Order: sequence, then C-alpha cells, then structure tokens
Amino acid sequence: MSGDRRQARVELTIPFHDVDMMGVAWHGHYARYFELAREAVLNQIGFGYKTMRDTGYAWPIIDFQVRYRHALHHEQKVLVSARIGDYENHLCIEYEIRDAASNQRLTTAQTRQVAVDMATGEICLASPQALLDRMVGL
Amino acid sequence: MSGDRRQARVELTIPFHDVDMMGVAWHGHYARYFELAREAVLNQIGFGYKTMRDTGYAWPIIDFQVRYRHALHHEQKVLVSARIGDYENHLCIEYEIRDAASNQRLTTAQTRQVAVDMATGEICLASPQALLDRMVGL
Amino acid sequence: MSGDRRQARVELTIPFHDVDMMGVAWHGHYARYFELAREAVLNQIGFGYKTMRDTGYAWPIIDFQVRYRHALHHEQKVLVSARIGDYENHLCIEYEIRDAASNQRLTTAQTRQVAVDMATGEICLASPQALLDRMVGL
Amino acid sequence: MSGDRRQARVELTIPFHDVDMMGVAWHGHYARYFELAREAVLNQIGFGYKTMRDTGYAWPIIDFQVRYRHALHHEQKVLVSARIGDYENHLCIEYEIRDAASNQRLTTAQTRQVAVDMATGEICLASPQALLDRMVGL
Repeated sequence: MSGDRRQARVELTIPFHDVDMMGVAWHGHYARYFELAREAVLNQIGFGYKTMRDTGYAWPIIDFQVRYRHALHHEQKVLVSARIGDYENHLCIEYEIRDAASNQRLTTAQTRQVAVDMATGEICLASPQALLDRMVGL
Repeated sequence: MSGDRRQARVELTIPFHDVDMMGVAWHGHYARYFELAREAVLNQIGFGYKTMRDTGYAWPIIDFQVRYRHALHHEQKVLVSARIGDYENHLCIEYEIRDAASNQRLTTAQTRQVAVDMATGEICLASPQALLDRMVGL
Repeated sequence: MSGDRRQARVELTIPFHDVDMMGVAWHGHYARYFELAREAVLNQIGFGYKTMRDTGYAWPIIDFQVRYRHALHHEQKVLVSARIGDYENHLCIEYEIRDAASNQRLTTAQTRQVAVDMATGEICLASPQALLDRMVGL
Repeated sequence: MSGDRRQARVELTIPFHDVDMMGVAWHGHYARYFELAREAVLNQIGFGYKTMRDTGYAWPIIDFQVRYRHALHHEQKVLVSARIGDYENHLCIEYEIRDAASNQRLTTAQTRQVAVDMATGEICLASPQALLDRMVGL
C-alpha cells in the first residue's frame, strides 16, 4: 500500500447471508466485494461517483471477469484490493481477494468501464480529461 | 383473483442463490419476493413507479413486517400475493407466500408507504388524489 | 458500549450497489446490515453460528420488523447496533442504525428467533441451556 | 429452442430493487439472472443441484465472464438463455440476454464449472460419467 495511490484495500468478513448450501460464498456476491474496493480506490484518487457525475460522465462497467481460485467461507476474514490499470481509453481495475491471516490469494478479477457523456449519451473513445488529471504522477 | 383488482399474484421458484447454509431461503431475500408482487399490483391499478414519479410523489416504505411461518426451500414453487389495504393516509400492502402445490400459507408480511412531495420533500398526511382516483370502485 | 456485552456495533458505509433509483438505500438491503450487527453480538457472547449448530439447534428468524425513520444515502457512514433483549423463550434482538457523524437515529428494527432441535425438527418452547448459560451475568 | 435440449430460456422483468442510481440494472445482479437460466438448462437435462450432489460431486464456478453490451432498464422484459458448451473436462455454459420485444442482444456471458469429488475434495480432471451420460445424443 505504501504510497501507491492507484491501489486501495478493504477488509471484510464473509457474512452468513453470502454463504450458499455448499458452505461457501456464492459466486455472484463477489461483485459487491469488488465494488467496495473500487469505491475506495476511486475515492482515494478523488474520482468517486459524485465526481464522475459532476464532471459530466457515467462510467458503466462493460466487462467483468472473475477467476475463483479458492472458495471463501463463512466468517473468513479477507482483504479485497483494487488497483487501477489502463485508464487512457477505458478504466480497467484489477482485483485480488486474499485471506487476511495467511495472505493466500483466493480470487482475481477485473472490470472495464467506459466513459459515457451524460449530455449526449455517446461513448467516449478516450477517457475524459477529468480522469487523466487525477492520474498524473500516480 | 376473480375481478379483485386490489390484489396480484406472482409465481416463483426459490433459486439456489437465495438459499443459505441451513438449506432454506435466507430471511432477507423475501423483501425481493414481496416487491415483485407489489410492483404487479401497483401496475395493475395503473400506479406503478413511473406513474408515482410523474404525479410528483415518492412513496418510500416506512414500515416492513414479516412473519416467517414455514421455511422456503430450494426449487420450491411458491405463489406470492400482494393486496392493497388502507390507502387513504398511508399505502398499506399485505402479502402472503403460499406453496404452489399444497396452497399452504408459508409467510405473511406487510409494508406501509407514505407519499412524499418530491417538490417540497414534505411527507403527506393524506394520500394524494392520484392514488385515490385509482382506487375508486376497486 | 462500555461493558455491555449484550450489545455490539458495526460501522459501515452505504455502498453504490445498495442505492436505488430514488437515491437511497433500498429497504430490503437493511436485513444484511442488521445481520452484520447480529453476528457481532452473538459472537461476542460466544454463541455464533458454529456454536448454535454444535449445540444442536438451528435458530431461524420467525419475525422481522423494521421502522424506516430516515433514508440512508450513498456513502453515508452509519453505525448499526444490535442488542439482545428477551432470550428465555425466544431470542429477540433489537437494532438501531444511527448516522456516524450526527448520531441521529435513522432506523429501528427487531428480529425474533426460535430454537429448533436439529435432531427432531421440533420448535423449543424454552430456549436451550446453551444460550441461557451464555447470558448469565450479562 | 425447438428440440435443442442443451439450451433453456427464462423470461424476466427487471425489478425495482435491481436498478441503481444511474437507472439501469446494477452489473452485479446479472449473476442471478444467469443462474435462473443455468438451473433451467441443468434441470432440463436431468442434472440439477440435487442430482449433482446425489452423484457425489460439487460443481463450483471457477470462472465467470460478462460482456455488458447494452444496459437493462427498470421493467424491461428480457429473455435469458443458457446453453451448455464444452462439458468433457469442465462444464461451460454460455448466456445471452435479449430484449423480449425487439430480440436485441444486450448481454453475453459464460461460466465454467469444475467437478469436485465431495468424498475426497479433489478436483476432477475429466467430467464424471454422471454428466457425460446426460449429454449423450444432445
């Protein structure tokens, strides 16, 4: 974490309501875990949801990929990290979930978002200046 | 159902992702089941979400009560009904979940909503005319 | 909190995925918030999910009531507390959600659980000794 | 659909609770939509959850990819289809969401599951006979 402002990490404990009949976190809940980390990293660079809207763009997720390497169990403490990757044309964020105790890597994922001009509804082929400005020097 | 426009019913099958480690639908998911039936009955009387907004009011739920009488199981087929009760000051809706095969009553619930004037943000002490009009003769 | 082991509190920030088109947390998501606090208080008294199972009982929620007093907004920081109330025949837990900054009370709720003997499937009219033991002196 | 038993389709209407502040279905909810179609196709070939367990295997999802091509809106009626692809080593299922009225393709996705022997906990390098048997002639 040391000084890498492109990355943020949240800790969470897998709650009862996320665990399925097989005794593991249902795969569809992970999107919430990743979003907690994504909100953290985007707020960290000053580009959270409110800023996105205020600068005139929506940033829908257009691609989402998850690789479930090891199951998550009830009451397991995990660390979810999000790291901003490419941002010049799309906004790509990469995620990892690790066991908080052992640091074992359990899950990897990525999302890709694209800027949509809220005035015209058009998809931007290059990321707006508002994002580029926030990435300078990071 | 015959002609009772105050009531609507939806059928659903309990999916894998709603079932917890005890093998039954987690209690927090029922709010979604009730909402499917609520949307059905409100659309039936011509007072769905879009109409609510277009007539200038939000209708937040201010009270929610559920009585879980019998568990719901994976792949169980159930009928969820919603029936409009009092509507003059609040909008009260009562719900039942029944087993589709045996008709056994499994769950009862109710929600209470109140009109909020979207222009002023104020809570209405009486239901707006837009709702009263739709209840005439029902 | 000082020494009251019957009560536990968790802090959370309302995430994007819990907020609806009206800009507030959808009422059905609150059951997750309450469960986080319930798991905390039950673990605190040594009566978490694993202990419940190991002592031979399931504890389904049979009644759930929520009073939504003020809306929760995106990125609002809130404190969710759970406090064990009556436990001799049922296990009743009372909840409050307060704004973390102002301490304003936003939501109140309660759940009622009943012990079910996992060997026989029968509902217990009195709470099992395993729970009573853990409440001694609290 | 005519006679293609490898494929199943479910219809659904996007409910209020799945729609976010941007007015579209939140991307993380789609996993539920796909699961409804997956359960349908697996039950259709006689290989639903109960059968999986009874034949001694768990089938966790190890990979999930979604391509969000067009947003889904509140009350939009959509068709979600699931089609079994490769099954000899992994169980791959491909999904499409289409608008029910226009048949426009809105979303594509795929999941990959692997058999885990529930007695030993070991991952199977080839799909168990129980699945192969059900695919004969399809």
